[in-house]
Amino acid sequence: MTASKKITSSLVEQQVSKSYQVNLIEDDNVTTSECAATSTGQHLIADFYGASQLNDIELMEDALTQAAATAGATLLHIHIHTFVGGGITGVALLAESHISVHTWPELEYAAFDAFMCGDAQPEKAIALLESIFTPSRIELKNIARG
Amino acid sequence: MTASKKITSSLVEQQVSKSYQVNLIEDDNVTTSECAATSTGQHLIADFYGASQLNDIELMEDALTQAAATAGATLLHIHIHTFVGGGITGVALLAESHISVHTWPELEYAAFDAFMCGDAQPEKAIALLESIFTPSRIELKNIARG
Repeated sequence: MTASKKITSSLVEQQVSKSYQVNLIEDDNVTTSECAATSTGQHLIADFYGASQLNDIELMEDALTQAAATAGATLLHIHIHTFVGGGITGVALLAESHISVHTWPELEYAAFDAFMCGDAQPEKAIALLESIFTPSRIELKNIARG
Repeated sequence: MTASKKITSSLVEQQVSKSYQVNLIEDDNVTTSECAATSTGQHLIADFYGASQLNDIELMEDALTQAAATAGATLLHIHIHTFVGGGITGVALLAESHISVHTWPELEYAAFDAFMCGDAQPEKAIALLESIFTPSRIELKNIARG
C-alpha cells in the first residue's frame, strides 16, 4: 500500500439543494485502473425519451449502483445532486471510467452515459437503466474511445 | 429556500489511493438547473493523444475548475481519483451537466467529455484543457443531446 491522503473541502455548507454521495474506496482492487494495459473503451450515449421516475434521488443512486454492478464495473464514488424545481444530475465514477445521468422529469427525458474500458459491459448498464426508467424510446450511440 | 439535506456516507475509510473532492453548493443560483426550459445540450467528446501532465491531481482539479469557468458553467461538485500505478479519473458536475476525464499517462492519452446544456460553451472548456495538457492530436466529436 502506498502513502495516500484525502482532501475534502466543503467550501460553503449552506445546503440549498439535496445531494447524495457515497465514497467507496474499498480495497487494493480499486487502487489500480482496471484498464491499465490499454486505453480503449466503449462509450454508450443513451438518450431516454418518455421515461419515468426521473426525480427520485434514492432510486437514482440505487440504479447507478446496480448499473455498475451488472456491467461488471468497480464503483469508486457516487455523487447525485437534485435541483430545486426538478431534475437530477449525477455520476458514478468507476475504475473503468464512469456512468453519468442528467434528467429533465418535466420533459420525461434523461441523458445517460456509460463509458467503460476493459472487460466491463456498458450495454448491460444501459439495459438495467432502461428496465428501471422505462423510456418509450432510446437514442443510442456507441463511440469507441482511446 | 426549501428544506434540504445532505447524506454523506464513507463506507470504508481505508485510503489506498488518493482522491480529491470539493463540494460547491454556493447559493440559490445553483439550486435550479441552468437549463430547465429545454433539455437540449452539446456533448463534446475529446480524445487527447500525445498529451502531458496527465498524472497530476492538483493540476487536474485546477484544470476542470478553469474549464467550467471559461465555458460559463456553474460548478456543483468535483471528485478526482488517482490510481496507484498511474492514471486519473474524475468529474466536475455542473448545473449544466458535466466535464469528465480519464487519463492513461503511460500512453499520453486522456478521454475528456464536456457536456453542457443551455448557454454554456463546452468548446471553450476543451480549448482550455488543450492549452494545459498540450496534446499533439485531438479527436473531437460533437453530439447533440436532448
